[in-house]
Amino acid sequence: LRWGYGARRTRRTFPRQGRFLEVHITIGELGEFGLIARISAGLPPGGHVILGIGDDAAVLRAPDRRVVATTDLLVEGKHFRRDWSGPRDVGHKAGARGLADVAAMGAVASGLLVAFAAPPELPVSWADEFTAGLAAECARGGAAIVGGDVAAADKIMIAVTALGDLQGRAPVRRSGAGQGDVVAVTGALGHSAAGLALLDHGLTGPAELLTAHRRPRPSYDAGPEAARCGATAMIDVSDGLLADLGHVAEASDVLIELTSALLPGSRPLSVAAELIITAAAGGPRPSEVARAARAVQAVAGTSAADWMLTGGEDHAFAAAFPPDVTLPARWSVIGHVRAPGTGTSAGVLVDGKRYKRRGGWEHFR
Amino acid sequence: LRWGYGARRTRRTFPRQGRFLEVHITIGELGEFGLIARISAGLPPGGHVILGIGDDAAVLRAPDRRVVATTDLLVEGKHFRRDWSGPRDVGHKAGARGLADVAAMGAVASGLLVAFAAPPELPVSWADEFTAGLAAECARGGAAIVGGDVAAADKIMIAVTALGDLQGRAPVRRSGAGQGDVVAVTGALGHSAAGLALLDHGLTGPAELLTAHRRPRPSYDAGPEAARCGATAMIDVSDGLLADLGHVAEASDVLIELTSALLPGSRPLSVAAELIITAAAGGPRPSEVARAARAVQAVAGTSAADWMLTGGEDHAFAAAFPPDVTLPARWSVIGHVRAPGTGTSAGVLVDGKRYKRRGGWEHFR
Repeated sequence: LRWGYGARRTRRTFPRQGRFLEVHITIGELGEFGLIARISAGLPPGGHVILGIGDDAAVLRAPDRRVVATTDLLVEGKHFRRDWSGPRDVGHKAGARGLADVAAMGAVASGLLVAFAAPPELPVSWADEFTAGLAAECARGGAAIVGGDVAAADKIMIAVTALGDLQGRAPVRRSGAGQGDVVAVTGALGHSAAGLALLDHGLTGPAELLTAHRRPRPSYDAGPEAARCGATAMIDVSDGLLADLGHVAEASDVLIELTSALLPGSRPLSVAAELIITAAAGGPRPSEVARAARAVQAVAGTSAADWMLTGGEDHAFAAAFPPDVTLPARWSVIGHVRAPGTGTSAGVLVDGKRYKRRGGWEHFR
Repeated sequence: LRWGYGARRTRRTFPRQGRFLEVHITIGELGEFGLIARISAGLPPGGHVILGIGDDAAVLRAPDRRVVATTDLLVEGKHFRRDWSGPRDVGHKAGARGLADVAAMGAVASGLLVAFAAPPELPVSWADEFTAGLAAECARGGAAIVGGDVAAADKIMIAVTALGDLQGRAPVRRSGAGQGDVVAVTGALGHSAAGLALLDHGLTGPAELLTAHRRPRPSYDAGPEAARCGATAMIDVSDGLLADLGHVAEASDVLIELTSALLPGSRPLSVAAELIITAAAGGPRPSEVARAARAVQAVAGTSAADWMLTGGEDHAFAAAFPPDVTLPARWSVIGHVRAPGTGTSAGVLVDGKRYKRRGGWEHFR
């Protein structure tokens, strides 16, 4: 296989929507129509697609005269490692990032476009598996892959744009949380971060946490569900619960008070924390001091509560609801919204205090 | 300035739509609202924007219940070189690629999302200038920047998604060209390729060709204009005229016959060809043989006609129209459409023959 990249060639042959296909034409036994069939096979009969892959642009239905749109990046070595995640995992993850953002507006996904840059020497099987994972995640989210572009790069870089349909509802923004609202979450919290920590320590279980890191499975229908229940604000938990609720608190100019005892329990997280602390303390004949230092280092940021509050990438959903709403069972109330007191800025409190570890959202303050 | 990239940080701090802003918050004197104002300043009051940058996703109007969508990649070293193009040029070019695809469907652009990966050590001024160029190109095309994402990468990589509004018209596809149609183009042909060749030979003029390479200026309104005139097929000329008309011919299953004498004349292209041949022949005391060899090498692919037929990235528009249509003056008829004869496949002929140099569209055959 050669993707045949060169400065002039690349300029001429990968410039546009639809080329995601044409690269494959040239490299496999497939041929164009075989590949279209292959990509399409994993997808539901895209109800929103008027014109899919193959022209200068795609055309999608926007039944209520509005379209939701969001773009997300994944960079090899930053958002995934090829030795820790397989191509199918990366495809799922790339899809999940975009589709979860659409759901967090209260919309259903309609279509997805993907820009894929990769080294020429990447095995075709990697691209095939990636596409299969992306297509499968789109199928989970009810969206069709309608366009893309391909180019050569030193490392794999994927940009996904997801489009969605609000089905006549108002978008659920970050800014609508009001005094007296309850705050609820659905989906696992901290599992992806714990999985990453396990990989980082060379551990191979608990398997569900590794899987959560490699291949998050957002419950996309929870987004529209929350909108129908009257959610006043909603966000995709991708930066970490504190960080993302911090965005909601700031946009809504409110104080969000969480009660740690209300956080959903997670036995695998406790197991993972124990495993990591043990692994860190027991290196090959380390000195007592080194062993203790490593254990302390491992413990910092290695507890179930820390992962739940600061771990990102689970793509759970957090939302505020009026206090009288009856929530479906998968939503857990974890706190409430109040007005900031005099001299108090908008933000998030855990058991009445600013959480001692800094969430991701503060990194750039 | 530090963008503060690290594996964990990046995961937490650049995962989503809207972060394009937040990076800037942290690195300059600007602050969030100053930057929003700055980005918005260059834009027309986005008529299609319901919800712009700053939430999990944007919401755009789709007045006729459809949205046009296309994604394009630009990779440093492949699609641009930082020593040959300034950041503002790259911003214009990134916008033009997406906006031209939307126009080539007969649509007007409504919104644009940008994924921007760059090395941490990139000066902020580069990102600022890039944004300014992108915003200015969006303004040219009538679109608003409504979302984005940022991450660290070894080289600059930009993925642009452009969305558009068909204003109630049918999309003009590649597949509609019919026997008897005329084929017409609008916009410069070959200027970008000639500009690139000049840069490649260290030449600094003609300036308009260098500018054409660095900062193409598609006439976006020509796309909807062609649709209103009844265009049966249309394409953005980004791969080169022969390559792109080849796509139209294949999708429409027709033969497109071009008449080279009808190609719009271009004095700058002839000047550039002369300059390059002279430059190639006149090195520092080369041997007669070396001089001749280099001249031959330079001449191959260095003529006005070659550039016009095979040069890409001008983002001219080529379209087929029924023969009885009266075209606006900026469209030049350059050929016509006929059915492939027996034993002849769909394709493009120039003066009755397959063009002797291979266009970009054949690189992967």
